[in-house]
Amino acid sequence: MKQLTIVKIGGNIIDDAGRLSDFLRLFAALEGPAILVHGGGKIATALGRRLGIAPQYVQGRRITDAATLELVTMVYGGLVNKQLVAGLQGLGCPALGLTGADGAVLRARKRPVQHTDFGFVGDLDASGVNTGRLQLFLDAGLRPVMAPLTFDGSGSLLNTNADTIAAALACAFAPGCAVRLVYCFEHKGVLASAADPQSLIPQISAAEYAQLKDSGIVTEGMIPKLDNAFDALRQGVAEVIIGHALELPSLLNHQTGTILT
Amino acid sequence: MKQLTIVKIGGNIIDDAGRLSDFLRLFAALEGPAILVHGGGKIATALGRRLGIAPQYVQGRRITDAATLELVTMVYGGLVNKQLVAGLQGLGCPALGLTGADGAVLRARKRPVQHTDFGFVGDLDASGVNTGRLQLFLDAGLRPVMAPLTFDGSGSLLNTNADTIAAALACAFAPGCAVRLVYCFEHKGVLASAADPQSLIPQISAAEYAQLKDSGIVTEGMIPKLDNAFDALRQGVAEVIIGHALELPSLLNHQTGTILT
Repeated sequence: MKQLTIVKIGGNIIDDAGRLSDFLRLFAALEGPAILVHGGGKIATALGRRLGIAPQYVQGRRITDAATLELVTMVYGGLVNKQLVAGLQGLGCPALGLTGADGAVLRARKRPVQHTDFGFVGDLDASGVNTGRLQLFLDAGLRPVMAPLTFDGSGSLLNTNADTIAAALACAFAPGCAVRLVYCFEHKGVLASAADPQSLIPQISAAEYAQLKDSGIVTEGMIPKLDNAFDALRQGVAEVIIGHALELPSLLNHQTGTILT
Repeated sequence: MKQLTIVKIGGNIIDDAGRLSDFLRLFAALEGPAILVHGGGKIATALGRRLGIAPQYVQGRRITDAATLELVTMVYGGLVNKQLVAGLQGLGCPALGLTGADGAVLRARKRPVQHTDFGFVGDLDASGVNTGRLQLFLDAGLRPVMAPLTFDGSGSLLNTNADTIAAALACAFAPGCAVRLVYCFEHKGVLASAADPQSLIPQISAAEYAQLKDSGIVTEGMIPKLDNAFDALRQGVAEVIIGHALELPSLLNHQTGTILT
């Protein structure tokens, strides 16, 4: 069976040049086909501040107006994506930077206006992933590096959460392929106590996840990530692992991090 | 013999949403394999002003310091490139946005410091073009859309003139391929009198070009473009045409514009 490793890298690693460089070395050394998905929200917020584009939130969720879409197109599709690609190429890793519009690889639906108009935000599921096009790149030995931008098929880019993109990619490739989905961030994995880095939970089943949510141990920021992750497992993704970006090889060997089952 | 059309589109068309949309329609309707190369200097200058990054020139040539490299990476690799790609995809044209780092398609040499340190500027010739990788994309039916950014092979992006990139691409594909190189801008072609749009020179040979330069008819801004163009013809490029972006089909049919011979 074919294998594919999908790694999502979060903003706190991307912000830190030293840690990012260490992470890129680990990603470049991975064996077999792999895709990197990145965020960049903090950098976008910082640049937005310099440009007088204040982040707007409704119910804790960011609104993407036209100015914000331009901002994230510059930061995610340009600055962050191209620096990652150039960095990986410098390590001999054949990276290919993509937004969802490039080669039409990720087609999303602009979120319908109900109570809130989220603006240029795209909802993506596995049906929007052009696996044929991505497989062409993978078969050519290229490593796609995906910015958190999708497109609507009618000329507009859309802002889409990077965790969601990673999960949609994993689900789309799951039929006929052993997909490992790895969420990398600045913590060792899911912690029983946010204040205690030693309180790593090495394994969580779907039933245990429901309990952790009920008891308030899993905090707000982790819930969308874990919801995505358990959904991916239900759709046939072989493994979902959550852990520290600089422990990528150990995460893949199940020596550390949180594995979801 | 295989055919390839390479179109360079300049900043004054990119700046104007209406004209850009008309141009993209023409480019999307082209038959056969094609590559689009774009600039974006004016947009970069405008954004730089908002960010307090003043353009620096030495002898009329822009210096690319670290802040400027970040700026052009955002604008060329992000904003402009991704808007072009999304616009083309919206027209059903299978665009794939690339900088030189993506798939290592354009590897340049950082310009050596002699009298002036130009900073992160890359000099590119045909030997730096990864034709195999680009041919893979073309064979898959994709249309590369190239930002004016190259890379040094060691982790850094470099700023490279879009006219130069178009010429280097044309020269690299010329062996075994009938390459048409089209420089599109906001004028009808090379004009005998800059003030008179009716003074179009329909055809210029290398000998005539030398006379036009001597007599001061060809102005400063056109010289690097025409030098590149005649160099491309010497290296086996089949046709070089210069003309108005919104006359692309007539340019290719030799009904208007300036053809270099």
